[in-house]
Formats: sequence, C-alpha cells, structure tokens
Amino acid sequence: MTYDVIVVGGASAGLTAAIYSSRLKLKTLVITKDMGGQVLLNPEVKNYPGFMSISSLDLMMKFQEQALDSGAEIVYDEAIEIKEKEDGFIVKTLTEEYESKTIILAFGNTPISLEVPGEKRLYGKGLSYSAIAHGHLFAKKVVMVVGWGDLAMNAALMLCDIADKVYLSYKTGELLGSFELREKLDEKENLELIPYSQVIEIKGKDKVESVILQNVWTQNIKEIKVDGVFVSIGYAPKTDFVRNLVEFNTAGKIIVDKSCSTSHLGIFAAGGVTDSPSKQIVISAGEGATAAISASKYIQRYYGSIRATGGD
Amino acid sequence: MTYDVIVVGGASAGLTAAIYSSRLKLKTLVITKDMGGQVLLNPEVKNYPGFMSISSLDLMMKFQEQALDSGAEIVYDEAIEIKEKEDGFIVKTLTEEYESKTIILAFGNTPISLEVPGEKRLYGKGLSYSAIAHGHLFAKKVVMVVGWGDLAMNAALMLCDIADKVYLSYKTGELLGSFELREKLDEKENLELIPYSQVIEIKGKDKVESVILQNVWTQNIKEIKVDGVFVSIGYAPKTDFVRNLVEFNTAGKIIVDKSCSTSHLGIFAAGGVTDSPSKQIVISAGEGATAAISASKYIQRYYGSIRATGGD
Repeated sequence: MTYDVIVVGGASAGLTAAIYSSRLKLKTLVITKDMGGQVLLNPEVKNYPGFMSISSLDLMMKFQEQALDSGAEIVYDEAIEIKEKEDGFIVKTLTEEYESKTIILAFGNTPISLEVPGEKRLYGKGLSYSAIAHGHLFAKKVVMVVGWGDLAMNAALMLCDIADKVYLSYKTGELLGSFELREKLDEKENLELIPYSQVIEIKGKDKVESVILQNVWTQNIKEIKVDGVFVSIGYAPKTDFVRNLVEFNTAGKIIVDKSCSTSHLGIFAAGGVTDSPSKQIVISAGEGATAAISASKYIQRYYGSIRATGGD
Repeated sequence: MTYDVIVVGGASAGLTAAIYSSRLKLKTLVITKDMGGQVLLNPEVKNYPGFMSISSLDLMMKFQEQALDSGAEIVYDEAIEIKEKEDGFIVKTLTEEYESKTIILAFGNTPISLEVPGEKRLYGKGLSYSAIAHGHLFAKKVVMVVGWGDLAMNAALMLCDIADKVYLSYKTGELLGSFELREKLDEKENLELIPYSQVIEIKGKDKVESVILQNVWTQNIKEIKVDGVFVSIGYAPKTDFVRNLVEFNTAGKIIVDKSCSTSHLGIFAAGGVTDSPSKQIVISAGEGATAAISASKYIQRYYGSIRATGGD
C-alpha cells in the first residue's frame, strides 16, 4: 500500500500537515516517536491564537484528534531511513517499511532515548516516549516514568489517573521544574518517587516486564516489575536519517522555500526542523499547512489528480 | 505618543501579530477597517488546528479578545498613508495620525466600500464594515446591512440579536450563499428584507441618520431612517497606500523573506498581502507571529531593549 503523504513527526507541524493533507483527500500516515513533541515542555500555552490559555497537553490532544478525524493514520514508531524508489519514497522505521509519493519532515527535536539495553527492542511493547500517545493502554497497570522535569511530571500526573501504580525514577535528588506540578504530584496516592535512580536496563521477553535501576550514590541495583516504561527525559535534534536527502544550513536546519519545499523534489519540511527563524506552535502549524498544500500540488502535477482534489 | 508596532489589518495575521507583539511587551496598535476580514466569508472553519469545527465569527472574536487581553489597542479606521519620519513611521488614517517604530502590514483583502456620498464622512459615526467590531454599539437601535451574500447574512443575524430592527438591503432578487443562513434569517422577526435595492447615499449630519435606496427595476427612491449602516458586500485587495514603500511581486503581493521582513527596514508583512503561496487562517496566523517576533528583534537591534523583552 502506498500513501500519498507520509508525515514524520507528531507535534504542531506534523499534525497540522496531517489535518490538511487528509482534508485534501490525500492518504496520509503520520510516523512519530511521541505525540505533541517539545510543546509539552511548557505546561501552559497562552500564545496560540484561539485559546486564551490551554494546557499544552490538551492542545496537542486536540490537534491529534482533529488529524485522526480528518482521516489521517498515526503510527508510533521511529523513522530511521528514507530511501528513494522509482516512484516515490520508502520510509523504514524500527519495525516496518512504508511507501509514499511525498514526505513531509515535520519533527523538531525528537524524544531523547535512554540508550540502555532493551529500550529499542521493547519500543511499542510497553516502552513509550509519550504518555499522550500510549497512556490509555495502561489502565489498571503498573508503569514507570523516567525523567526529572515538567515533561516527566506531566506524564506521571496523566498516568496516575489511568494506571494502578506509577513509579517516577529520576537521577536528581529533587524534581526540577514547575512548582505547581510538584504540588499536584504530592496529592497522588498511587505515585512512588525514586530519586537518585538511573535506569540501566529494561527487561522483558515479548513486552516490558521490569526495569533495572541503579542508585547513583550507593551503586545498589534493584529490579522493579512494571508493565510499561515512559521515557520522558527531553528532546534533541535528530536529522541524521535525512542528511543525504535534503540540504541543510550551517545551523543544521533543513532549508525550505516559502512553499516549505526542500531541495529534494517531493520532500517538504515544516516546524522545528526548518531554517525559518522563529519557532512557535502557531508558526509550525502554519508551515505544516503550507507543506501539505504544497505536497498536494506536487502530487497533482506529477501523478495527476485522482485522489488529490486541490484547495480546500 | 509613539507605538512600537502598528499592525494594519484585523484578521488572522494582524490579530496574531498583535497577540505576539503585546506579549513581547511592545506597545501595539491595530488599525483596521473591519474585524475578522475575509475569514468571515466562510461561515464554518474546520481546518484551524485546535477546533474540530468553529464558526468563523467565533474564531475571529477569540483572536480579537486574546489580542486585547494581551494589551493591544484596536482602532477601527482606514490606513490611507504611511510616511517615513526620522525615527520610524507615521500612519495616516481617515481620522487620525499615529506614530510607530515598526509597521506590520497584515491585511489580506479589505472590505469593499459602497463609494456613495456620505460613506467616508460617516465612517465611524454609524457607518461600519464590521458587525463584529461595532454591532454592540447598536443595542435597541435601527440598522441597515448592505449586501447579498454570507457576509451580509451573518452580519444581519448577529445584529438581529442586538438591534431593535434590522433592514437587509441587496441589489439581487434573492440572497445568495448558505441555505442555512437564509433559514436562520427567516426566523428573525425584527428583520426586513429589501431586495432589488441599491444604496445611493448615506445621510446624516454628525452621525448616520438615513439611507437613500433606489429600486433597481422601478428606479423609485425611498429614504429609510436608521442609526447605523453595515456595509458587507465583499473584499478586494487595496495596497496602493504602500506601493512606494515596499517591493511587490508581479502578482501584486508584497515580497517577504522567511522572517516576514519586507524590502523596507522596519516594515514587516503577514497574511493575505504577502507573496507566500498558500492562504489559510493558520498560515496567516503563523506569519503574524513571525512578523511580530521579527519586529521585536528589529526594535531591540535599533532602539535597544527598553521595552522589547525578546523571546516569549
């Protein structure tokens, strides 16, 4: 099966691109490691037009819901390679291969991995980088959130309302970030904090079964049985898998023109990864829409207009 | 008094620019002939991320409320000339002069005038191009809406809930546009339709007192006493007042770079008026945010950072 548009990235830019391309009747797949991206680093959004104030979590869930409602498919996976084929592109992920006529690169920074044994293998099998995307799978279960900042605290708060028991493991002695979030965490009776702890392995045969933690002071090791692990330590740029496909500027950003086209025909880019000067939710969303409309025009031009219906 | 930023235009791009520049602590004035612009031509918006479906009126009112809440000032007036001065710009409107360090040109098309005697003179004195902006001033009064499409029908519907009596004057025999809106109008008991009518003059000494209508078939003339007139006939591009200031492309659009800077230092542009290829609410909003951030950086660079606090 070939998609019209594969969007890599699941935050403001990627989800808006998916809303637009789906509404333009293009068969659209979003591939993303997480949901909402670094937007979630700020608990509250006050500068997205239309909402005087909204939690970043709620806003990104609205974007996601709208993308799904428009007809887009979303898979949680990590794109690791994009190859050209005669008639479009192949996107390889950790677990699958997908084909598409066009690509929209719409990630900013991507979630940082722990880089510990078991992590890659168990991704999608209990290991996640996004409580928004996967939290609902852990009703009445035991989960561990790994991280020390607002991102981890938000994930833990969300999961406390879903799971039976939530561990929060962090290398620091204290949680860092919003005081309000810390206060809210204090009220959660099913939460257990594990300070000074470092994840050294994630274990499980076909799915996550336990986490091996080491105390950073005593070096003591303990194993905690869990059904899920949410890695919430932060974001970093990760563009190596498209290095040979599109042109970058000296700052490591993908060069786009006003139509969000990259140097490579059929590949578009939007959001954090582009060389546009300012990064904001509404700016990324605007670029996502532009990229989707440009992808639609490209498909009409090169493939005819069977499914692409043009302007909306 | 000198503003940091004067935004010309009061729809998605302009209001978002105002939200951003105000939140960046820049003293911001929005000058606009109407509110919401041609967004209001489509009654329902389904592709603005964050709202699965929202009336264009509600969405633009949210943008406006957020701009005001952020600290922006809004005046309903028409910018007719922008002049350079030693240290910034002077914006002349129909009724005033304002000074500013920077300008953001954020209009798309602007409301079409009737071009009848009395119209310019009585603008702001009972004559308006925007029910959103001025409707609330006509509680318990008698108003006339002029126009035959969705824009006029939306204005009439809104005003029926505010004014005692609403006339809807249109040159056509039937109202054109959304069937739903026509059905809603049928329910309004304080509405009087005047088909085949053409406005030939608006009368009043210091404020609107009556409208002179001519029947397009019989040529008969009648005078109707009203307190307000809402001209809602459509939108057209109107860029003559900045022709000598910034560079345009051959399609009559203002050329901007990725930072939404025009060819003229200190003047930025966003939304319908720019040469970016696709026009959508979220794209215009994104450009508005970019223009405001660029204006803020420009002020920091050229005037120091007394009021401009930089990134948000």
